[in-house]
Amino acid sequence: MSFRFEIHGRDGAARVGRLETPHGAIETPAFMPVGTLGAVKGLTPQELESAGAQVMLANLYHLSLRPGVEAIERLGGLHSFTGWRRPILTDSGGFQVFSLSGHREVDGDGVTFRSHLDGERLRFTPEQVVAAQERLGVDLAMVLDECPPWPIEEAAAERSLERTLEWARRAVAARRRPERTALFGIAQGSVFRRLRERAARELAELPFDGYAIGGVSVGEPEAERRAVVEWTAPALPEARPRYLMGVGTPEDLLHAVASGVDLFDCVLPARNGRHGLLFTRAGVIRIKNAVFRDDPRPLDAECRCPVCARVPRALLHHLVRAGEITGAVYGTLHNLRYFLDFMADLRQAIRSCQLGERARSRAVSSADGNRTESLAAPAPGSAFSGGSGGFRP
Amino acid sequence: MSFRFEIHGRDGAARVGRLETPHGAIETPAFMPVGTLGAVKGLTPQELESAGAQVMLANLYHLSLRPGVEAIERLGGLHSFTGWRRPILTDSGGFQVFSLSGHREVDGDGVTFRSHLDGERLRFTPEQVVAAQERLGVDLAMVLDECPPWPIEEAAAERSLERTLEWARRAVAARRRPERTALFGIAQGSVFRRLRERAARELAELPFDGYAIGGVSVGEPEAERRAVVEWTAPALPEARPRYLMGVGTPEDLLHAVASGVDLFDCVLPARNGRHGLLFTRAGVIRIKNAVFRDDPRPLDAECRCPVCARVPRALLHHLVRAGEITGAVYGTLHNLRYFLDFMADLRQAIRSCQLGERARSRAVSSADGNRTESLAAPAPGSAFSGGSGGFRP
Repeated sequence: MSFRFEIHGRDGAARVGRLETPHGAIETPAFMPVGTLGAVKGLTPQELESAGAQVMLANLYHLSLRPGVEAIERLGGLHSFTGWRRPILTDSGGFQVFSLSGHREVDGDGVTFRSHLDGERLRFTPEQVVAAQERLGVDLAMVLDECPPWPIEEAAAERSLERTLEWARRAVAARRRPERTALFGIAQGSVFRRLRERAARELAELPFDGYAIGGVSVGEPEAERRAVVEWTAPALPEARPRYLMGVGTPEDLLHAVASGVDLFDCVLPARNGRHGLLFTRAGVIRIKNAVFRDDPRPLDAECRCPVCARVPRALLHHLVRAGEITGAVYGTLHNLRYFLDFMADLRQAIRSCQLGERARSRAVSSADGNRTESLAAPAPGSAFSGGSGGFRP
Repeated sequence: MSFRFEIHGRDGAARVGRLETPHGAIETPAFMPVGTLGAVKGLTPQELESAGAQVMLANLYHLSLRPGVEAIERLGGLHSFTGWRRPILTDSGGFQVFSLSGHREVDGDGVTFRSHLDGERLRFTPEQVVAAQERLGVDLAMVLDECPPWPIEEAAAERSLERTLEWARRAVAARRRPERTALFGIAQGSVFRRLRERAARELAELPFDGYAIGGVSVGEPEAERRAVVEWTAPALPEARPRYLMGVGTPEDLLHAVASGVDLFDCVLPARNGRHGLLFTRAGVIRIKNAVFRDDPRPLDAECRCPVCARVPRALLHHLVRAGEITGAVYGTLHNLRYFLDFMADLRQAIRSCQLGERARSRAVSSADGNRTESLAAPAPGSAFSGGSGGFRP
């Protein structure tokens, strides 16, 4: 089977494993950089590989609008089109479509929406979304789900969940190339434990290759988000990879890994990197701050990224202040390396049963507010979050 | 001596040689990528090195405004600040200052101007400009010159030239670290043969390490620009490197190399690259054109840059149309590689006395207007030229 998932070690609920795909294996837990339109903003595929990226994420909604699924298929699929040779996961676009408030109509069969680019009327159904991702030739595909807003009442969340579950059953039935494209179900249910557990239970009865936790990072408080992960992850099938969509900070990732999650994506490191909010082992720094104007040190002396290998904080301060494109490229390159190294470190910690110590030392470091800025996710609507769109691409 | 220049071969007036500097040798003729503010827009130093860049250009005017010469000196100099370990040449900023029409006052002693960023009043004198570049620790420094506009009457051009020559003499007298920072004189004289020859003759009497041809690419027609090169280059000292400032297209470079010029810089490849005007061995292509939407081929099958190694023209079309930063990065990376490979090819042609054949085959290829778009420099003021600022950074 093309999508064998093996668990090689455990530390509490956390697992370290390996997911095999037609384009290579992914060591888990893994962070997947986001290349919404077919490229991670500012980086070449070669730089991403050097940074340790094992899998890239792209987005069916955005690629459907331009250049279109047919155009990519004619070019030999998404790997040929992007030049990325390792595994690709596409998000179905459900999240994007349901973010287009006022521009979409849901019916039992699917969802009709208008392109955010030119207003063109388009339609997604569960079957089309599976077929489109199979045509792109991606390794990992997501079902079409309904992503409810936060806050939402429980009854409305349950009606929405029932639609998502019905769509999941239709998605499974629509598969034509299961040996080439794995399909993941998505558990919804907002912040309600009963709904999340129902979602996990009903999805687990379907033969998905993996299971995702969706509908988080939509504005809910951190405590609610973490509770959703703690309820849902253990209820998902033990033998399949679990993917937490659109989350988040290193602390969120650590918490979810400890809860048994294996895959992650988030635009946070790249988006923050472009704006000069940079992750280091001593905390997050806002490189525009005047204190970095004359700082000769690398961003992070322990980091082995191309930026830390060469340039001082003073140059990053200068370039980001001047609005130079190179400042955005440097920030992205470094932040993604930071997240990828962080996940490699968590894999090592699980193998040696030291995840608890990692969590404690990290909590101490984060609490040292004098030296480090907050590691928390920026508030929705701030310059660093991209607004209510949250952290899904 | 730190700045030995050896000529290893000739083909007509063209020479192939080697310029030694404290940060390594430069094989000439050489193209110098422009990193005005301390970084080539969108690229890391490592990518530039892999592309074959031997020397990077930066700009004293821009760096004086921010972060300031003192700040860079405190950080250990421009090499430490930028992370670029190979030779650096700084332009004096004369060109930039004289482009600030209405914001500058020239007197016999120097030039007073207002920052284009915040209106702060600043002053450059020939002595300060030499001292500043020595403090930056650059390998190759340029004198302060007066860069007259085009068109200009001959009498005015001569008065301006006399000031530039006087400033050149003062610059030579101001040197304090000649073993660490080479100094180049700049020949002005607009489009007047008598003035250009006078400039070359009088500069040659001064002990510069190299000699530049300035005051071109300021809007003059191609034929005038080429005549200036043909008059000036042979009048400059044979044993020293010759540098044509801010020029230009591959055809301009080939013409100047054949006239005996050794060093070049131009923002053209990077600026055009950011906007999707891409150089290939079959001519220049405007990647936004609809014809490239479904083109599965690499930009240039013979190119060994990271872009051509991986991605099809269709992806570049898609990214540039979508305004993605990665489109700008890809275009810059490829175009600079094209220019650097082009110069390496000219060096090889001179060694084997085949420069004439190169010029003839290139002329035939350029004339094939059905397959290729114009290779000529865009008109001043067009989206691709950056307006009347020309091609100096």
